[in-house]
Amino acid sequence: MGVFDTDGSEATGHEQVVFCQDRTSGLKAIIGIYSTALGPALGGTRFYPYESEEAALADVLKLSRGMAYKNSLAGLDLGGGKAVIWGDPVRDKSEALLRAYGRFVESLRGRYYTACDVGTYVPDMDVVSRETRYVTGRSVQNGGAGDSSVLTAWGVFQGMRAAAEHTWGSPSLSGRTVGIAGLGKVGKYLAGHLIGDGATVVATDVNPLALEWARTTHPEIQIVADTQTLIASDIDVYAPCALGGALNDDTVPVLRAKVVAGGANNQLAHPGIGKMLEDEGILYIPDYLLNAGGVIQVADEIQGFDFERAKLRATGIFDTTRRILQLAGDEGVPPAVAADRLAERRMAEVGRLRSIYLG
Amino acid sequence: MGVFDTDGSEATGHEQVVFCQDRTSGLKAIIGIYSTALGPALGGTRFYPYESEEAALADVLKLSRGMAYKNSLAGLDLGGGKAVIWGDPVRDKSEALLRAYGRFVESLRGRYYTACDVGTYVPDMDVVSRETRYVTGRSVQNGGAGDSSVLTAWGVFQGMRAAAEHTWGSPSLSGRTVGIAGLGKVGKYLAGHLIGDGATVVATDVNPLALEWARTTHPEIQIVADTQTLIASDIDVYAPCALGGALNDDTVPVLRAKVVAGGANNQLAHPGIGKMLEDEGILYIPDYLLNAGGVIQVADEIQGFDFERAKLRATGIFDTTRRILQLAGDEGVPPAVAADRLAERRMAEVGRLRSIYLG
Repeated sequence: MGVFDTDGSEATGHEQVVFCQDRTSGLKAIIGIYSTALGPALGGTRFYPYESEEAALADVLKLSRGMAYKNSLAGLDLGGGKAVIWGDPVRDKSEALLRAYGRFVESLRGRYYTACDVGTYVPDMDVVSRETRYVTGRSVQNGGAGDSSVLTAWGVFQGMRAAAEHTWGSPSLSGRTVGIAGLGKVGKYLAGHLIGDGATVVATDVNPLALEWARTTHPEIQIVADTQTLIASDIDVYAPCALGGALNDDTVPVLRAKVVAGGANNQLAHPGIGKMLEDEGILYIPDYLLNAGGVIQVADEIQGFDFERAKLRATGIFDTTRRILQLAGDEGVPPAVAADRLAERRMAEVGRLRSIYLG
Repeated sequence: MGVFDTDGSEATGHEQVVFCQDRTSGLKAIIGIYSTALGPALGGTRFYPYESEEAALADVLKLSRGMAYKNSLAGLDLGGGKAVIWGDPVRDKSEALLRAYGRFVESLRGRYYTACDVGTYVPDMDVVSRETRYVTGRSVQNGGAGDSSVLTAWGVFQGMRAAAEHTWGSPSLSGRTVGIAGLGKVGKYLAGHLIGDGATVVATDVNPLALEWARTTHPEIQIVADTQTLIASDIDVYAPCALGGALNDDTVPVLRAKVVAGGANNQLAHPGIGKMLEDEGILYIPDYLLNAGGVIQVADEIQGFDFERAKLRATGIFDTTRRILQLAGDEGVPPAVAADRLAERRMAEVGRLRSIYLG
């Protein structure tokens, strides 16, 4: 797979792809910038032991494109980017490697802002920030915004409210039963919002500590044995909040919920699942729309983090979900397609405004 | 072929490789930065209809590495870089494409300076310069240094003098016979210097205008029918000044010169030719050492072109050639290997000086 578009496919429509190497520290990184139409590209750095350079490239091309759509839909003045560091984070991560990476991020002079992703953590971003200004996801002590799962959960809750309004006429989840797969950080906060709104929460998690948290903090949460049991339960809304691929050929046929709205990434195991959900009459709210609270938070960090301002923007996921459901109805397409269209339109319509000269 | 070094090979030791795409104008460019140990990477932009993205990548990796060695040996405070634009220069070149390219050069904020190469010309660099400061090879009217063949020829002459000193004890070419293959811009100026020094010049060219120039300007130049005749002539020095690959399996066995010193790029058709020349007792002065006058000129343009300053530096090719011949003798290696070592040492020794903090 190459970098350049040779067949008109949006999948290789990337503006810039930057290979960065520092042989002494062992750094091998690829920064993908899909689009800067809306502003500097923002997206995290994945540190992963890919099988090959080709696999690393394919991942950064896919992820950076996804960020362009996510940031556009989130209403941010940010383009889409992502970076991968090819290596084993446990074995290969070092101060020198992270700082070499930081120098390459700096070399792009703000066309790309980085953040945490799989294999990179807040302390890593603190190290990266010693070489570049263009980094978010730092520790609170170093100007960072802290745990982004608070706003991620808030955004998921807002999108779920819009889905409820669309499905049952009222945005309230009161009286509805919501099944949460995964009581990690996002799932926990989401459960709290739902219980506060009067919903019944059914949940599952493989981690005993998460179950212990539920028993002590929210004894009203009904715990079930596993995800299979959860999706076959009599739930109105299914909220995948754990690993990707929650919606697949096995789970969709047994799913009893009318709405799927969760915080997990890449919920659809393959593109055909979208159609399957539609055929089953299940309303699927695109994951990258719902879980944008995290990127909204790190984006706010660029301006100097203000929780209330970021929360206001994450609350906007309610309105965006409404607009997408409206557009989906108007254009006769699934919400996922409507979301892509809205993201693309914003990139085109707002991006072209720079042609109005301001000096 | 990938970008990253996976086997310890210097051939993939590149610091940064930047793919740049602008789908509207059709721009597909790759900027290769081999090293910035000595300063910003400098090298031209080749506009060429490569068969594939892989072929374009392979070319930019090879060329940018070559520039690192050339710029190091030339004593410049510049690293090595090169760019390729994948396309047909006749069909695809446009103001928008060149300016899109200029914006990507600008995005690197001076880590890479571009210039002309195959398929790009002075008027193109003028267009590129409307989007970026980091461009040389512009027209004189736009701050450029003009025709670089003057200093290229001067540098070749200086290197040839050092080779003569090494071979015959005196740097003068007086009384020697020099065969010049190609009376293009560099070959013409070189012929002038040699005649001025008292040498006999034998030359060949396929272009009738070049032969007409010789007849009218320097009737003392002996014109022969073709390169085959030239290399079989009784010449002391052979100066390839036309296309690459002048030294190959066919030409070396019949070559009668004791010294090869010319301005053409990539004179060795394949790496084995270096050994063949050595076995024949022919002293080959590396092309990238001799023809550095061109890059010395465009480098000087960065500071605001001063011909005398640039000429002084190109005169230094005499001393550098001397050092390389000395090193080759000391270490028992061909001059080409000695040149590579000298270039690498300078990158390592001078590059590390930045570790002395200056604020």
